[in-house]
Amino acid sequence: MLYFLSDYTEGAHPKVLAHLCARNLVSLPGYGDDADTGAAKEKIRAACGRNDLQICFLVGGTQTNRIAVSATLRSYEGVVCADTGHVNVHESGAIEHSGHKVLPLPQENGKLSAAALAEYMDAFLADETNEHMVRPGMVYISHPTELGTLYTKAELSALSETCRQYGLPLYLDGARLGYGLMSPASDMTLSDIAALTDIFYIGGTKVGALCGEALVYTRGNMPPHFTAVIKQQGALLAKTRVVSQQFDALFTDGLYWEIGRHAIRQAMRLKKMFTDRGYKLFADSPTNQQFFVMSPAEIERLRQYAAFETWAPLGENRVAVRFVTSWATTDEQLDELERVL
Amino acid sequence: MLYFLSDYTEGAHPKVLAHLCARNLVSLPGYGDDADTGAAKEKIRAACGRNDLQICFLVGGTQTNRIAVSATLRSYEGVVCADTGHVNVHESGAIEHSGHKVLPLPQENGKLSAAALAEYMDAFLADETNEHMVRPGMVYISHPTELGTLYTKAELSALSETCRQYGLPLYLDGARLGYGLMSPASDMTLSDIAALTDIFYIGGTKVGALCGEALVYTRGNMPPHFTAVIKQQGALLAKTRVVSQQFDALFTDGLYWEIGRHAIRQAMRLKKMFTDRGYKLFADSPTNQQFFVMSPAEIERLRQYAAFETWAPLGENRVAVRFVTSWATTDEQLDELERVL
Amino acid sequence: MLYFLSDYTEGAHPKVLAHLCARNLVSLPGYGDDADTGAAKEKIRAACGRNDLQICFLVGGTQTNRIAVSATLRSYEGVVCADTGHVNVHESGAIEHSGHKVLPLPQENGKLSAAALAEYMDAFLADETNEHMVRPGMVYISHPTELGTLYTKAELSALSETCRQYGLPLYLDGARLGYGLMSPASDMTLSDIAALTDIFYIGGTKVGALCGEALVYTRGNMPPHFTAVIKQQGALLAKTRVVSQQFDALFTDGLYWEIGRHAIRQAMRLKKMFTDRGYKLFADSPTNQQFFVMSPAEIERLRQYAAFETWAPLGENRVAVRFVTSWATTDEQLDELERVL
Amino acid sequence: MLYFLSDYTEGAHPKVLAHLCARNLVSLPGYGDDADTGAAKEKIRAACGRNDLQICFLVGGTQTNRIAVSATLRSYEGVVCADTGHVNVHESGAIEHSGHKVLPLPQENGKLSAAALAEYMDAFLADETNEHMVRPGMVYISHPTELGTLYTKAELSALSETCRQYGLPLYLDGARLGYGLMSPASDMTLSDIAALTDIFYIGGTKVGALCGEALVYTRGNMPPHFTAVIKQQGALLAKTRVVSQQFDALFTDGLYWEIGRHAIRQAMRLKKMFTDRGYKLFADSPTNQQFFVMSPAEIERLRQYAAFETWAPLGENRVAVRFVTSWATTDEQLDELERVL
Repeated sequence: MLYFLSDYTEGAHPKVLAHLCARNLVSLPGYGDDADTGAAKEKIRAACGRNDLQICFLVGGTQTNRIAVSATLRSYEGVVCADTGHVNVHESGAIEHSGHKVLPLPQENGKLSAAALAEYMDAFLADETNEHMVRPGMVYISHPTELGTLYTKAELSALSETCRQYGLPLYLDGARLGYGLMSPASDMTLSDIAALTDIFYIGGTKVGALCGEALVYTRGNMPPHFTAVIKQQGALLAKTRVVSQQFDALFTDGLYWEIGRHAIRQAMRLKKMFTDRGYKLFADSPTNQQFFVMSPAEIERLRQYAAFETWAPLGENRVAVRFVTSWATTDEQLDELERVL
Repeated sequence: MLYFLSDYTEGAHPKVLAHLCARNLVSLPGYGDDADTGAAKEKIRAACGRNDLQICFLVGGTQTNRIAVSATLRSYEGVVCADTGHVNVHESGAIEHSGHKVLPLPQENGKLSAAALAEYMDAFLADETNEHMVRPGMVYISHPTELGTLYTKAELSALSETCRQYGLPLYLDGARLGYGLMSPASDMTLSDIAALTDIFYIGGTKVGALCGEALVYTRGNMPPHFTAVIKQQGALLAKTRVVSQQFDALFTDGLYWEIGRHAIRQAMRLKKMFTDRGYKLFADSPTNQQFFVMSPAEIERLRQYAAFETWAPLGENRVAVRFVTSWATTDEQLDELERVL
Repeated sequence: MLYFLSDYTEGAHPKVLAHLCARNLVSLPGYGDDADTGAAKEKIRAACGRNDLQICFLVGGTQTNRIAVSATLRSYEGVVCADTGHVNVHESGAIEHSGHKVLPLPQENGKLSAAALAEYMDAFLADETNEHMVRPGMVYISHPTELGTLYTKAELSALSETCRQYGLPLYLDGARLGYGLMSPASDMTLSDIAALTDIFYIGGTKVGALCGEALVYTRGNMPPHFTAVIKQQGALLAKTRVVSQQFDALFTDGLYWEIGRHAIRQAMRLKKMFTDRGYKLFADSPTNQQFFVMSPAEIERLRQYAAFETWAPLGENRVAVRFVTSWATTDEQLDELERVL
Repeated sequence: MLYFLSDYTEGAHPKVLAHLCARNLVSLPGYGDDADTGAAKEKIRAACGRNDLQICFLVGGTQTNRIAVSATLRSYEGVVCADTGHVNVHESGAIEHSGHKVLPLPQENGKLSAAALAEYMDAFLADETNEHMVRPGMVYISHPTELGTLYTKAELSALSETCRQYGLPLYLDGARLGYGLMSPASDMTLSDIAALTDIFYIGGTKVGALCGEALVYTRGNMPPHFTAVIKQQGALLAKTRVVSQQFDALFTDGLYWEIGRHAIRQAMRLKKMFTDRGYKLFADSPTNQQFFVMSPAEIERLRQYAAFETWAPLGENRVAVRFVTSWATTDEQLDELERVL
C-alpha cells in the first residue's frame, strides 16, 4: 500500500533519529533546563537571524495552539481566524475548552485577508453593545494553510500591519512551515516570518521529527512563568531533550530545508501526474498537500493501491481528496502511483 | 423621554412588588429550601399542566443559559444554535468560558429549522474525522427569537422530533416567553413548550419581575447535585425566595399572561404607527420587539423624544432599529410617540 | 418558630424595600449604565471618604468572590486564605471551577496572620521547584471571619503591609461587614478597610438587602472590560438598578450602620443569655454570629422552639452550634428565646 | 558529574530506542489507529493477564493525571488524595486548572489509608451543608508514593474496598510502577494493580522510555469519545506510534521488569552506602528514590561530585535530600559515589 495519507505516517527522518541515538546516554537535567535544549534554541535563533527570540519546545500542534492562544488572551477575549482554520475546525474544541471563543471570518483559499480583518474590527468597535460580545484578542493564521496555500510576503505584511493597528498579536501556526518556505511559490524566509508575526511555531511532527514543535515569541512577549503555564496544561516534558535534540538535528546543515525541498519536489510531480490525467484541482496548492476532485468510483479503485484522505463531499458524485508528500516520499512510491493511476 | 429601549427598563410589575412586600418579614430558610419556593414551583407546574416538572430559580438569562448548557454537555460537546442565537452573539462568550463551543447554523428569521439541523448532523456523522471536531451535544433555540419571531407548533414539533432522532436534548430560551405565547401569531401553549422541549426557561426579568428566571427540566433530567452546580457557578441565591415569590405572583390569576397580552397589544399599535408612515420592517415580528429600517437622520430626530436601540447597519444610509414594549408601556406613551413620529 | 438560622432568612429591611418601590416605575437603561446606579456608587464613595473608588454591583457572595478572584489571578496563580475561609470550604469549589487553586494556611480564630503569610511566601520563594507548584497570586480574608471574629486595625495593617511586600493583592470578603464594623470590638472604619485592602466587597444580602453586594476596587485596579468579565460569568444583571437602589437606601442616613448596631446589640444579649446559663463558647465572637457548645439532647430540646445551625461535631457528645442575629431580630424574639432556654 | 537527580536524566533504554529505529520507516496511520499501537496494547494486556483492559497512550505524567481525573469527575466533584500527592503539590495546579478541587487528606509515609478515607467520607456525608462543599468524586494514590514507599496488598485491598463502598473510582499513578513492583518489599503484581484499581497508569518516562505513559481502564470504564477528550486537552499524538512502540519494547521479554530490578538493586546499594556512613533516612524507601538527611555543608561538599535534589528544609541545619537510581545507573557510578562519599 502506498501512503499519501499525511506527512506523519512514518517515524523521524533518519538523521533526526541518529542524533537522538547519539545523545541518548548523556545525562541532562529535566524540564528544559539542559544544555542540549539551549543548543537547539541557538540553532533556531541563528536560522531566523535573530538572537532575541524566546523559544520553548512542545509536543504537538493542537497542544501548541491551545497554549499559545490561551496564554495570550484575557478571559473575555477570543481568537480571530479564517473559518477553515485548524483551531476552528479540527482540534476537538481545544480553544473553547480553554475558555475562549474562536471568531471565524470568511476566507479565500484558506487565507485571512487584512481587509477582512479590518472590516470585522471596525464593525466590532462601532457596535455599542460590544461589551456583550467576545472581544477579538489575537489573530491566528496557518502557513501553509489547511488547503496548502501560502500567504505572499505582501499579504502577510498587510495582515501584520493591520493587526498592529488594532493591537492584536498575530500568531502563525507553522505545522508545515518547512514545506511552505521551500515552495517555489514562497517569497518569504524564516526571518520574514519572525519579523511579521508576534508568535509562531516551527512544526516538527510533520516535518521529520517523531514529535515536537518549537514555539517562538518574537517580541520578548513570552508570558511570565511560562513553564508553570505549560505544566498546568499537562504539556511540560520531563525530557524536553527528546524534542530539542530533534530540532537540533533539523536545524543542523539545513536538514529542515532539505526535507521541505524534497517533499515539494515530490508533490509537484504528483500534482502533474493527476492534472495530466485530467483530474481537476480542488485547491491549487504549491506545497506538500495536494487536493483533487474525484468520483466515488475513482476513489474506490485507487484505494486498492494507495492510502489517502477524502477531504469534503462536493455533491453531484464528486469528492475532494487529499494526497500528502513528506520527507519520506520516495521516487519509487511515485513511480508506483503513476503506474496505478 | 419615551422609553422603548427594552423590556427591562423599569422595576417590577406592581403586583409582583406587592407580593414581595407582603411576604417580606416571613422567616424562611435559605438556598431554595423554603415553602414559598415550593409554592411557586407548584404554580408553574399547574400552569404547564404537569406535576412532574423539576424547576429551579435563577437570576438572569445569560446565567441560566450558561448553567443549562454547561450542565448538560460533556466536555467534548458543543451546543448547536441559529447563528443569530443569543448564546452565540450577545453573552460575552459565556458558553465558551464554560468550556464549550457554540456551533452556529444558518437560520431564517432567527429560527433554526429541523431540516438544517438534520443536514448538519448527517454531515457530522458521515465525517470520518469527527473525533477531531466538536461533537454536537444539544440544541439551543430562543422563543421568541432574537428577531421577535415565533416557531409554529409544527416547526417546533419537527425540531423536537429531529433532536430526538439524533439524541440531542432540546433547550428553549424563553427570556420573553410570556410575550411569545400571547401573540396572536402563536399556536402554542406553555404545555406545548413543556412537551416539545427537554429543558426550557420561563423568563421573569423581561416579563414583569425585578429579576429571575425559572429553569424547567421536563423529563426528570435535572442533573444530580444541581444545587452544587449552581453554587459553583456563583448563581445560588441565599434568598431564593426573592425570585420564587416573584414567580408566585406572576403565576397567580394569570398575571404572566396579562402582562404578555398587554405588551403585544402595545407592540401591534406601535408597529402599525410605523408602517402607516411608510417605515419598512427589518423583521416581521409578531411579538413585543419591533424592528424598522430608518435613515441616520430619522434616528437622530426621533431620539430627541424616544430612547430605542440601533440594531444593525444595513448600508446605503439605512439602519435597523428596535422598539420594545412591555408590561410598563402605557397608552399615553404610545400617544406621545405617535405625536412625534 | 424563632429564627436564628442565619442573617438571610427574611426579605429586605423595610426602608430598602420602600426605596425599591419608590423608584419602581422610573425608566432606566440596563446593565449598570443608569443614574440610580451612579448615585449609589457616589454614596458608597462618600461613606468611604474616597472619590476614586471603582465600584460594581453583583448579586451574591460566592459570585462576588469567584469573579474578584478569577479576574485578579493569572492562570498559574492561586489564592491564599485561612483554611477556614469561605472560598476554601463552603462555595462548592467555585474558585477551582474557575481554574484556580485555593491555598489554605493555618489560622487562629478564623484569622490569617501576617506572620503565617510571610512564612509561607518565604518557603515558596525558596523552593527551587516552585514553577511546578501553584504560585500565590493574591490573599483572601473575610471580615468578620466565618467564626464571627474580627481583625484589629493593627492585624489588618500588618497583613496589608506583608501583602504589599510580596506583591499580593489583598481581597476582603465583607459579606457581614456592617455587623463587623459596628461591633464594639472593632477599631476600624469603612475608610480603613478601603485604605488597607486592594479589593473588598460590602455585603448587602446578609445586611438588609434582598440580594446584592458592592465590589470595590481601591487602587484604580478594576480589570479592563469588567462588564464583559461579569457578563461572561453569568453575573451581569439587566436591571442592575435592583441592587444599586438597595445600596442607595442602605447608605442613606446611615441605615447600613443602624442595621449593624441593632444586630450586634441583639447578639450580645443572646450571647449573655447562653453564657449566663453556663453554655461554653465555641468561638468568642464579637459580631452577629454566636457559637456555643451543646449536647445533642440540648439541641433537640431547643429545636422545638428555635431554628439554628449545627456547626461542627466536637466529639464526646458535644456539638458546636451557631445562632445568628440580624436587622430583623426583635426584642420579642429574644424574650421568647430567653423563656425557652 | 554523577547524576542522581532523577530517573529521567537520560534518553531511553537502548532496547527501546532500537525498537523505535527498527520500526522507523514503516508507514502507519495516525492518532493511535495503527497496528503497532494495537500490538503494544496486547502486550500490556498480556502482562496484566487480562484481555478486557482499555488502554491509551499519553505523553507524560501530569498530562495523564489531568486527563484521567478531569474525564472521570463531574463538574462539582473533587479528587481525594494524600496531602503529599503529586497532583496536590507538584503539578502547577493542573487539576484545578481543569476545574476541580484537590481534596488532600493526612497521610503516613506518603500513603492514604482506608481508615482516613472512610472517616473523611463519613464526615462529608453527615454534613448537612455538603451541597456547599466540593463532593469527593474519586481517589488518587501514587505507587510508589512521592516518598518512594509502597502500599502492601492488604493496604491497597482495604483502600479499594473502601472506595467501592463509597462509590469512588480509585486511580493509581504508576509513574514509577516498574520500580515499585520489582522492590523486594512489594507483595503485588501488575495483575493485582489491575484488579484493585479502576484506572491506573504504567509509567514509561521514568522507566526507560523517551516519553510516554500507558493509561489503563480496568472496568470497561474508559469515557466515551475519549479520543476527542485527549485531543481537546492537546494531548493527542499524531504519531501515537512513538509512545506505543516504546511500550511494545518495554513489554517484550520482560524488559520493564528488568529495568525495575536493576534500579532497585542499585538503590539498595546506594542506601547502604549512606546508612553505613551514619546518614539518617528521611523516609525509609524500598524503591529507587532514596531520601537522606544532610547538613548544608555536607550537601555543598557532595555537590562537587554528584547532582541530586534537596527535598525539604528540616530546620536546625538539616535538609532532606533525594538520590534517584534508574535503568541507567551503572555500577561504576556507584563505585565513584562511594569513593567521594
